[in-house]
Amino acid sequence: MTDFAAIDTPAVLIDLDRVEANLARAQTYADSHGLPLRPHIKTHKLPRFAKRAVELGAVGITVQKLGEAEVMADAGITDIFLPYNILGAEKLARLHALNDRVTIAVTADSTTTVDGLSATFANAAKPLRVLVECDTGMGRCGVQSPADAVLLAQYIAAAPGLVFDGLMTYPAAGQVEANAAWLAAARDALIAANLPARVISNGGSPDLWRAHEVTAATEHRPGTYIYMDRSQVARNVGTFDDCALTVLATVVSRPNENRAIIDAGSKSLTSDTLGMVGFGYIEAYPDAVITGLSEEHGHIDLTNCAQKPAIGEKLRIVPNHACVVSNLFDEVNLISDGKLVERVPVAARGRVD
Amino acid sequence: MTDFAAIDTPAVLIDLDRVEANLARAQTYADSHGLPLRPHIKTHKLPRFAKRAVELGAVGITVQKLGEAEVMADAGITDIFLPYNILGAEKLARLHALNDRVTIAVTADSTTTVDGLSATFANAAKPLRVLVECDTGMGRCGVQSPADAVLLAQYIAAAPGLVFDGLMTYPAAGQVEANAAWLAAARDALIAANLPARVISNGGSPDLWRAHEVTAATEHRPGTYIYMDRSQVARNVGTFDDCALTVLATVVSRPNENRAIIDAGSKSLTSDTLGMVGFGYIEAYPDAVITGLSEEHGHIDLTNCAQKPAIGEKLRIVPNHACVVSNLFDEVNLISDGKLVERVPVAARGRVD
Repeated sequence: MTDFAAIDTPAVLIDLDRVEANLARAQTYADSHGLPLRPHIKTHKLPRFAKRAVELGAVGITVQKLGEAEVMADAGITDIFLPYNILGAEKLARLHALNDRVTIAVTADSTTTVDGLSATFANAAKPLRVLVECDTGMGRCGVQSPADAVLLAQYIAAAPGLVFDGLMTYPAAGQVEANAAWLAAARDALIAANLPARVISNGGSPDLWRAHEVTAATEHRPGTYIYMDRSQVARNVGTFDDCALTVLATVVSRPNENRAIIDAGSKSLTSDTLGMVGFGYIEAYPDAVITGLSEEHGHIDLTNCAQKPAIGEKLRIVPNHACVVSNLFDEVNLISDGKLVERVPVAARGRVD
Repeated sequence: MTDFAAIDTPAVLIDLDRVEANLARAQTYADSHGLPLRPHIKTHKLPRFAKRAVELGAVGITVQKLGEAEVMADAGITDIFLPYNILGAEKLARLHALNDRVTIAVTADSTTTVDGLSATFANAAKPLRVLVECDTGMGRCGVQSPADAVLLAQYIAAAPGLVFDGLMTYPAAGQVEANAAWLAAARDALIAANLPARVISNGGSPDLWRAHEVTAATEHRPGTYIYMDRSQVARNVGTFDDCALTVLATVVSRPNENRAIIDAGSKSLTSDTLGMVGFGYIEAYPDAVITGLSEEHGHIDLTNCAQKPAIGEKLRIVPNHACVVSNLFDEVNLISDGKLVERVPVAARGRVD
């Protein structure tokens, strides 16, 4: 294995070959089911990968923040979905400016949100497309029933400056049947109300390979699939050999026989456990456990390791959650075939609003 | 309460009056015990607060990364402690450059680290000051016994280009007596070995008000005390009225009677629990519980709240861990007397190496 001696640590490595394979695998799957993909860029925050997904057949992209949409629009992406309740004068003005230059849609789950959108777009030359966010099991945002989805759809359709464009959900992982039933009921209720949904947007990587079972959906928004991570491997979405993002860290201390300390802590790997034990998978030491993180230290238990790393050794670590790691590094290292290709800024990192 | 209507969310607010009070309280305490303070800038990452602490009497600052040291040196700070094992050619060259322009010291806990430092500084005009990192109970880096501290001190003292300068620990919270005993034993063993420690550096905000009980220590390095946070309040280091850093968030959804969703998720509040239940303290709704975080959504349970927030309402939240929040925002809003004073870049944010 190449040791990337020239790359100072901690650092993020992105394996371009695995990125390409992950994008292609998902697009091939989606094409085989006639299901359009609209990948979420939160995982990588890099215009080049957003563009590459579109080249491979994605119908557009998904972002979570206006700032991410602005970065992607600046980079030439023309079809952007922002599934969020946009509130407040400053954000509404930015949304108006975006709607003037790209194809964009947002979501709403309350009349308060719709009222703000309508006040902003009532006199706009181009109306804003709005989807109803549905809580199909995640317990986050979203209207609570198909009947409520119809009511809010009617409210949007009647609001000046807005176009009702359909439904959106971010479903609970593993609840494919319940999600499918919810969306089908809402679809049918909208048809009965003479307000059919043009788009029904489903999401998530955890159930990506079952996306076709949600038959009411007209598109799917996977995010993490481009990089995969330890949580996706735990869900059998991919294997460690599919994981494209790794954190490169150096062993800085071996205080005793079974403890190693690395220079990647919560500022590199994040505290996200996503329900798992440990904070990452160390490729060269699969039996090691990252038991805890300080901000700048990772604590590793080597008890179960036959071989143990030395001080100064560099380790590649698959993090629990790739998306949050992308947000912590100003730059990432693109690699291919075990070699450093290019170091690039994470253009949409830190776009908090 | 001022609602900071002009500040878009999510955003970080820093109350300058509370910062000043927290700095002054700690300095007064330290002065009363004749114990020098060397505050850790990881919490705020702002040169102005590093300088203010020095103005109030701090003997210098502590940083955790070379990148942080470089930012602070550029800002005019002249006495910097970097308690970390610095390894690798690139970092050693940067350390050499820093040692040429400011007073700096580092730590080591292995002969491997010392060998690298010595090879770099053997022919330097100015030797490098090196302290032995001691594991006095934290279970992170550090030599494992006072006897090992003496051995490594002797190794440093014999190494070309290096000066043995003393001992450093980051102790386990709440283990004041054990930490004090460890350091006293190491101090005495060094005296017996005719290699007395010039500096014995103790650290941490959790036991800040008991720092004087660690009688062997010649300085203390608190960090979080400048902002306080929910974890420090839980340890009775301060109260919520002392907390200077809050995250300002907007309620974006009220899907049902007892659920609110805010626009601050793990990208704003971080997943750090530090052993607590929930992800922050909402000032205006102390009975609300932030039960979970997605990247861009905070999930709030309002079951125990008599009053419940409306969509669009802005909430001020004391995070579990202020230091990690500072690393997530490119800019913070300085406030005083309930008014926005200035928006400033977090100069040392994202210095991962």
